[in-house]
Amino acid sequence: MADEKMRLGVCYYPEHWPEDWWADDARRMAEMGLSRVRIGEFAWSRIEPEPGRFDWHWLDRAVDTLHAAGLGILMGTPTATPPKWLVDRMPDMVPLDAHGRPRGFGSRRHYCFSHQGYRGEAARIAAAMADRYGLHPAIVGWQIDNEYGCHDTVVSYSPAAAQAFRAWLERRYETIQALNAAWGNVFWSMEYRSFAEIEPPNLTVTEPNPAHMLDFRRFSSDQVVAFHQVQAEIVRARSPGRDIIHNFMGFFTEFDHHQLGRALDVASWDSYPLGFLEQFWFSPEEKQAYLRQGHPDIAAFHHDLYRGCSKGRWSVMEQQPGPVNWAPYNPAPLPGMVRLWTLEAMAHGAELVSYFRWRQAPFAQEQMHAGLLRPDRADDQGAVEARHAAVDIDRIGPAGAPPRAVALIFSYDAAWVTDTQPQGRGFSALRLAFETYSALRRRGLDVDIVAPDAPLDGYGIVVIPCLPIFPDALVDRLAEFGGPVLVGPRSGSKTESFNIPPNLPPGPLHTLVPLRVVRVESLRPGCIETGVGVDVGKWLEHVETDLPAEESLNNGRAIVYRSGRIRYVACWPDAALLDRLVGRMAAEAGLLTLDLPAGVRVRRAGRLCFAFNYSHDEVRLPVADGPDFIIGGAALAPADVAVWRS
Amino acid sequence: MADEKMRLGVCYYPEHWPEDWWADDARRMAEMGLSRVRIGEFAWSRIEPEPGRFDWHWLDRAVDTLHAAGLGILMGTPTATPPKWLVDRMPDMVPLDAHGRPRGFGSRRHYCFSHQGYRGEAARIAAAMADRYGLHPAIVGWQIDNEYGCHDTVVSYSPAAAQAFRAWLERRYETIQALNAAWGNVFWSMEYRSFAEIEPPNLTVTEPNPAHMLDFRRFSSDQVVAFHQVQAEIVRARSPGRDIIHNFMGFFTEFDHHQLGRALDVASWDSYPLGFLEQFWFSPEEKQAYLRQGHPDIAAFHHDLYRGCSKGRWSVMEQQPGPVNWAPYNPAPLPGMVRLWTLEAMAHGAELVSYFRWRQAPFAQEQMHAGLLRPDRADDQGAVEARHAAVDIDRIGPAGAPPRAVALIFSYDAAWVTDTQPQGRGFSALRLAFETYSALRRRGLDVDIVAPDAPLDGYGIVVIPCLPIFPDALVDRLAEFGGPVLVGPRSGSKTESFNIPPNLPPGPLHTLVPLRVVRVESLRPGCIETGVGVDVGKWLEHVETDLPAEESLNNGRAIVYRSGRIRYVACWPDAALLDRLVGRMAAEAGLLTLDLPAGVRVRRAGRLCFAFNYSHDEVRLPVADGPDFIIGGAALAPADVAVWRS
Amino acid sequence: MADEKMRLGVCYYPEHWPEDWWADDARRMAEMGLSRVRIGEFAWSRIEPEPGRFDWHWLDRAVDTLHAAGLGILMGTPTATPPKWLVDRMPDMVPLDAHGRPRGFGSRRHYCFSHQGYRGEAARIAAAMADRYGLHPAIVGWQIDNEYGCHDTVVSYSPAAAQAFRAWLERRYETIQALNAAWGNVFWSMEYRSFAEIEPPNLTVTEPNPAHMLDFRRFSSDQVVAFHQVQAEIVRARSPGRDIIHNFMGFFTEFDHHQLGRALDVASWDSYPLGFLEQFWFSPEEKQAYLRQGHPDIAAFHHDLYRGCSKGRWSVMEQQPGPVNWAPYNPAPLPGMVRLWTLEAMAHGAELVSYFRWRQAPFAQEQMHAGLLRPDRADDQGAVEARHAAVDIDRIGPAGAPPRAVALIFSYDAAWVTDTQPQGRGFSALRLAFETYSALRRRGLDVDIVAPDAPLDGYGIVVIPCLPIFPDALVDRLAEFGGPVLVGPRSGSKTESFNIPPNLPPGPLHTLVPLRVVRVESLRPGCIETGVGVDVGKWLEHVETDLPAEESLNNGRAIVYRSGRIRYVACWPDAALLDRLVGRMAAEAGLLTLDLPAGVRVRRAGRLCFAFNYSHDEVRLPVADGPDFIIGGAALAPADVAVWRS
Repeated sequence: MADEKMRLGVCYYPEHWPEDWWADDARRMAEMGLSRVRIGEFAWSRIEPEPGRFDWHWLDRAVDTLHAAGLGILMGTPTATPPKWLVDRMPDMVPLDAHGRPRGFGSRRHYCFSHQGYRGEAARIAAAMADRYGLHPAIVGWQIDNEYGCHDTVVSYSPAAAQAFRAWLERRYETIQALNAAWGNVFWSMEYRSFAEIEPPNLTVTEPNPAHMLDFRRFSSDQVVAFHQVQAEIVRARSPGRDIIHNFMGFFTEFDHHQLGRALDVASWDSYPLGFLEQFWFSPEEKQAYLRQGHPDIAAFHHDLYRGCSKGRWSVMEQQPGPVNWAPYNPAPLPGMVRLWTLEAMAHGAELVSYFRWRQAPFAQEQMHAGLLRPDRADDQGAVEARHAAVDIDRIGPAGAPPRAVALIFSYDAAWVTDTQPQGRGFSALRLAFETYSALRRRGLDVDIVAPDAPLDGYGIVVIPCLPIFPDALVDRLAEFGGPVLVGPRSGSKTESFNIPPNLPPGPLHTLVPLRVVRVESLRPGCIETGVGVDVGKWLEHVETDLPAEESLNNGRAIVYRSGRIRYVACWPDAALLDRLVGRMAAEAGLLTLDLPAGVRVRRAGRLCFAFNYSHDEVRLPVADGPDFIIGGAALAPADVAVWRS
Repeated sequence: MADEKMRLGVCYYPEHWPEDWWADDARRMAEMGLSRVRIGEFAWSRIEPEPGRFDWHWLDRAVDTLHAAGLGILMGTPTATPPKWLVDRMPDMVPLDAHGRPRGFGSRRHYCFSHQGYRGEAARIAAAMADRYGLHPAIVGWQIDNEYGCHDTVVSYSPAAAQAFRAWLERRYETIQALNAAWGNVFWSMEYRSFAEIEPPNLTVTEPNPAHMLDFRRFSSDQVVAFHQVQAEIVRARSPGRDIIHNFMGFFTEFDHHQLGRALDVASWDSYPLGFLEQFWFSPEEKQAYLRQGHPDIAAFHHDLYRGCSKGRWSVMEQQPGPVNWAPYNPAPLPGMVRLWTLEAMAHGAELVSYFRWRQAPFAQEQMHAGLLRPDRADDQGAVEARHAAVDIDRIGPAGAPPRAVALIFSYDAAWVTDTQPQGRGFSALRLAFETYSALRRRGLDVDIVAPDAPLDGYGIVVIPCLPIFPDALVDRLAEFGGPVLVGPRSGSKTESFNIPPNLPPGPLHTLVPLRVVRVESLRPGCIETGVGVDVGKWLEHVETDLPAEESLNNGRAIVYRSGRIRYVACWPDAALLDRLVGRMAAEAGLLTLDLPAGVRVRRAGRLCFAFNYSHDEVRLPVADGPDFIIGGAALAPADVAVWRS
Repeated sequence: MADEKMRLGVCYYPEHWPEDWWADDARRMAEMGLSRVRIGEFAWSRIEPEPGRFDWHWLDRAVDTLHAAGLGILMGTPTATPPKWLVDRMPDMVPLDAHGRPRGFGSRRHYCFSHQGYRGEAARIAAAMADRYGLHPAIVGWQIDNEYGCHDTVVSYSPAAAQAFRAWLERRYETIQALNAAWGNVFWSMEYRSFAEIEPPNLTVTEPNPAHMLDFRRFSSDQVVAFHQVQAEIVRARSPGRDIIHNFMGFFTEFDHHQLGRALDVASWDSYPLGFLEQFWFSPEEKQAYLRQGHPDIAAFHHDLYRGCSKGRWSVMEQQPGPVNWAPYNPAPLPGMVRLWTLEAMAHGAELVSYFRWRQAPFAQEQMHAGLLRPDRADDQGAVEARHAAVDIDRIGPAGAPPRAVALIFSYDAAWVTDTQPQGRGFSALRLAFETYSALRRRGLDVDIVAPDAPLDGYGIVVIPCLPIFPDALVDRLAEFGGPVLVGPRSGSKTESFNIPPNLPPGPLHTLVPLRVVRVESLRPGCIETGVGVDVGKWLEHVETDLPAEESLNNGRAIVYRSGRIRYVACWPDAALLDRLVGRMAAEAGLLTLDLPAGVRVRRAGRLCFAFNYSHDEVRLPVADGPDFIIGGAALAPADVAVWRS
């Protein structure tokens, strides 16, 4: 898609509005510079108001109206919101939470991925929609379901899940002896005599076996993929040539997005930088500094992550256009940020940025969620900035191919391992990936976040922040890779079965980095070990090796070891240590680094270079005398963007 | 009642003590200056020890003994504590919590307001008591049940509640189409086909529809009123000329006290200033400064609130006499505070202050709750101060009619709206009402807290801190009202059906205050916008208007707009901003304000003026040369009271 | 045992390792200086893989292998980990938590102590093991079950528990009238008509009757003892001459260890100083200062407590050998600490220190728990220090009889009372016992922690930090005791039935200390009353007495009263006040106190004196010119130990 201009779009709910507004809405969308519109994904109760009775007429008219205005339609299957009559017909379709409580009707996502009856119903409605619209010329793509797993819905402890889990385990292990051996069930007499004896790992007296938990997480992820594939196949068969899409969420690891991405044509995600800043691990100081911008790496991290999930084609399906309703606190974006976020997605290679939503709804759960338009139909700030972005995109033209500079390897099972066994409260492989990513971006480096099986050719640096289950094949590929490699703590610390490897961590990596982690420590907040310009907290590994130390603490304990091109970080690195290591590796790899002002990020795309100012101050970009600015200039105001050719 | 002296009383449990102590207790009560005694409200298991077998003899003797000592009796119906045999006969009478768990026998309030079987039992026991004592000359009033809703018992998710809720909805909406439209159930396919499909709004995957929740809160409140009315009618018919009373709690908004108050002759409340300080939103600094006094506005706020709930007749049914047992921390009141609280109730127009309880019980849940007497029958500090107060009351005489200065409008559905949709964590209409009240009281103004339908004539100022559902009739009355009006944030922001009004907030108020709130922001603690002498946090509204700004932030954003006599506050105001606005409005209204020392409050009653020192320091009252002091003087010690004629 | 050298041992799980490693393991144990090995306690699924089918062969070989290496075996009964097939045969054997949720299979301790069916199964497996190994010469003792109550498993709200509770109550009270009177059930109409009406005290609307709760805690404790005794009797009958042992936990009060101790030959406990520091009430500053050592009184407190639980014979059954896996944060011990902890147990009179565990398991829940050996079979730091300790123990020889200096009286029902009714958040009798103990130890005094019925002869000082239910017999013994006595707050404040005593607190103690506590206050953190060099927070009692004050606050309120030899502390004492009182009493009793450097502790054993440095600094011991050092010297490095003859 690098040869096409990025498109803009919007999420629209014709069923929410009087039909006589539709044509005007469509006209205004097109006039605003939008060419895509997503509809349908929550409309089941309007499409099938009674079991088996379909009402297509309104949707036919909506599709035609949007089509007439020149908009391409992304049609959603409405399986995230089964109607009440369906839940009443099979009440056991709802998920059970870890306490055994049903999670019932009244909001959304009230279905268990393992329930075969509901899977059939999902197939039925998807087929009906695809039969109706699959060949309609307005339809350019399909979004299957909506935000899988949102509201903590991947893992369900229902009887349906328990039954499916047993079958999954039997396929995986074949014999119960193999399972008992793999999990180490001899411990605490947890051995099973048959697969039929196994339950989900909830409601145990103290923590369950981590191998039991990890397999339940794998199983739960697989159920999402299996659920998805039923619809994907149905729709693909009935709507040839259209893209199959799903919209992922932010900082969400409950299922394997790499695996689901294989069943997609386009990976998309829903970008809410302010909500995510508020909800996640950021410090109070960061939450204050970036209150109305979001942390400068939140959007980019996900762009670079999801680009790696689906053969490179990706979109922002929902772009925050103003304040949202769902975070603990919901400030408004700084004026300019909606445009900035839009152009930043472009810089990272998106083929579409679609705003959520066209007009703020005056009713129901999301009535305090801004849209491009206000509830009174007037333009809101988001509309103003979308227009601005559309003009910018026209001026910039196609963005060009994404560069290959740094590969950061992330695996979803890394998150499952550290969730299951943090060993020190708050240890999160995802967070370590994010902090490492942030260090790379602070130095102006372009990053691809990729799966452990991704090819590494063309990259200057490979970074593996935390990969507990370390594939042998990756060891082989690292051996062949010619540039510097950074491997973070806990990498190689677990086998596929959540055991400590016989040769101790880093397990298979030992052939490349001849050291053994013989002991780990987790430290409570405030307990710090200091080195030269470095503070180490949270996590510290004791290493046995003949390798020389590259970085050490004042007490003599080494925290970074180097074995040729490969470095191993034996602690949770702070920002200073990461900065130093990034700088050193970039120099070794011959990659240019920048001394960026705080809150500023850059990104290359083909021959274009983009800069974004997330700070509260006007900054001066570190560009040598006078590049050819297409947008903006070397002096960059807060929330402003510059684009130049390099 | 303004022409009668305030009475003192006490809560007494003859069933807790040997019968041969009763006469001496009654004698001591009278000797102490008490003339009212509340009994009976938890005695069901003694009145009806077996189903259908009543034992009245002990209670007859208790009533006669108290009567003989000249005490008027307030008899409680014991429906807050159904005995075990009754629960065992209908186990489904207990409430279910939001997690679906039964809330069973073993403490109190273990009944669901919607359970028809229990409602019948409550009617039966109330009738039996009223039949027995309705015409007894000692009986001067009836307390129906006890502290409705205490321990979070208004809202129940039981099958009985679900069934009653459906019927309630059907009465309200008539057709399911009307309900679907009002709630906006098209959102997320939440549409129902019949009322039978509707469930209470708990155990949903993510938040339920706020309109669903608001109606469930309204319904739950109505069930309390309906439950109450059954007993009130029974007792009223059998005990003519006696007052029907209920004792409300502090900072409690789960049912509509204005509506329940219409079924009462006297609204009373249970005043525990130290416990409430500890339990509610006050800052650690306030909790420390007022540790042994309570915040100086806690008691007064409720006096002024409940006076507005029942045509002006109100009492303190339970007055804290010493340390309590139920707050996280339970300090002792500063010596003098029990007397101060008593006289403060008098200043605000109470017709009775009744201490809870006569003697500290040495057993069961409240054994660490002080009484006027210690468990060993000796006088405790509370008794000393009650005697002192009795002497003071005699000296002061009848307090005179309450003044009309400021009307502060509060509505229970405002609390339900902000509970349901805080939009920023901790946003509470109740808290904003309290903080506004506090600002008025710091300037020495007398306040009536009234319902939105209260007449406004005679007031100098009207203050509406936060009224999301803004009645059209109130708009009309404000248009007629001649003095300054202050309207706070979120007022007019919701329709009756929890929608954003079509013309945007402040909805119907737009005719008086021509502005539109086009966006709101909630800010996390520590995120502050500064103006001249003002810090704005928590909440900030973006306004579109031609009105001039009266107050602005340094960034130019206006936070107070003025349209003639009416001001609109487009933020959560801090104390400094409130002080400024109160001062300005008082000047406009020609109301005298005072520059009171910190922790000092004043209150007028007829021609009397009362002053109360909640601080730790002796203060000098800002009284011009030498008023005629009845109690105390211009130099006021901590916990002391002054009364003078103005 | 004072005439025998302390032994070292280890916990071993032959079933976790290849059989061909066993002989080498046994050899290495012996070579390391270990002479005891605990096995078997979690091996049910290997011993009885199918219902009724026993597989003894592997265990026979393991026993013989260990025996051949000269190791004495402590055999565990595996009742803490019933296998899945057993749970599936009687699913109602699992405990129910306070919310009514089952606590099922998948970890350990998934049984309700009251379930008669499971009690029979426990008897059956214990009998089978004792039949098989009772007379084997290798077997020197039996551990019954494992860590009773770990993971909050003492209290269960199951139907089995409810039924047993009713029977227990009927035995205790005989008539329901007696129970109603004792509990004060007239309060809130909680009276029962029969024992059959009574339920466990969970799922009540607000707090249950504290007397109900206390009896449920007593009952739950008794169920643990009854469960234990079934196995103890079976094993004792089949394995004469062997010790019956159980391993207690740290800071654990859910059952009465004094009572269970009566059924033991040896009380043992599981010593995890770093995990306990992290899990309990210590301040962030203490958690940081002692991060890798544990608070210097944690291990000693339990040594001195459990020595008093079983006629003086006690052991450390599990000694932390490195980082653990179960605390929120898990640092590594400072090098030297494993040796220090070992020798400290010796100083306090242990007959065995057994490390947990031999080798770190690479699988299942405790894979991150260190052992003496690493998972790769190499020696870990723990092994190095165990060797060092073994050499030290040989050099020191038998430790000699424990001294009698200070008796600190602790009762488990004190903890139940303050758990049930803290009255101020966080009030804990256990914590007050610990803080008082710590003050004694900071002055170098040797302490026995004893039950209220322990003989007091031979002690110089008696300290009773908090004993709400104060036995008459103890009053009599204190009257006879000749030395200074310190009695702490809330002592004597409750009757056996959780009532306030008729003569007010301190109840029966009034004859010795003629004062009455007429009121108590709990204060929130930060609310402090100051005296000379003393800060009083948390708890303050108002006292009526003619006794003179020994210590007072600046406001004149007395906080310590003295009646002859007996002092009463009317507040939660801070460290400064405790230090002062300890110093004064030691002087009166003629006990030598020491001015120990921060973090240093000493302990006498016969003629030996031990010193331990828990601080981060080298310290100089306050020893007069040149004692005869056996280990170390007057200059003591961090984590180092000195032993000399006095």
